[in-house]
Amino acid sequence: MGEEKKKHRTTVTIYGQQYTIKSHESPQHVINVAEHLDRKMRQYKKDNPYLDTTRLAVLTALNTVDEYLKLKDKLALYEKEQRETTDNEE
Amino acid sequence: MGEEKKKHRTTVTIYGQQYTIKSHESPQHVINVAEHLDRKMRQYKKDNPYLDTTRLAVLTALNTVDEYLKLKDKLALYEKEQRETTDNEE
Repeated sequence: MGEEKKKHRTTVTIYGQQYTIKSHESPQHVINVAEHLDRKMRQYKKDNPYLDTTRLAVLTALNTVDEYLKLKDKLALYEKEQRETTDNEE
Repeated sequence: MGEEKKKHRTTVTIYGQQYTIKSHESPQHVINVAEHLDRKMRQYKKDNPYLDTTRLAVLTALNTVDEYLKLKDKLALYEKEQRETTDNEE
């Protein structure tokens, strides 16, 4: 995202609470991300009904960080393979 | 992760609160993920000092979901390119 790009303000509802998000991304992107998180939190609550909202949000964030780091490792591996293929072709 | 693999219980501290995580992953992996999230939450709090812990956790989760979905798109693109390269070689 370029620094010159205008920031949009998008209001989304996550787990019953409203949040106004300032982002360079399109409002539709922000809504998609919020819906993804809202679904994840509701699923987590179903599996762990005793959790309060803060712990629920932290554990959902923890789960997402885990998925993110695993995906990052996978991508790094792809890029390494890609580089090795390119090196062999030269 | 195979279903037969044993679950470990790992206690981590995130933003001053203790969480016991049951996971097939190694305790070290769980600690790494928790530290990543703890750093992220503290950075977010620095940038937005007025936020309470629940909103802080939700917004950190939102940010992580955003990063995760972008990475997922990038990986899907890589895999598509990979498939196309393989198809052209056949």
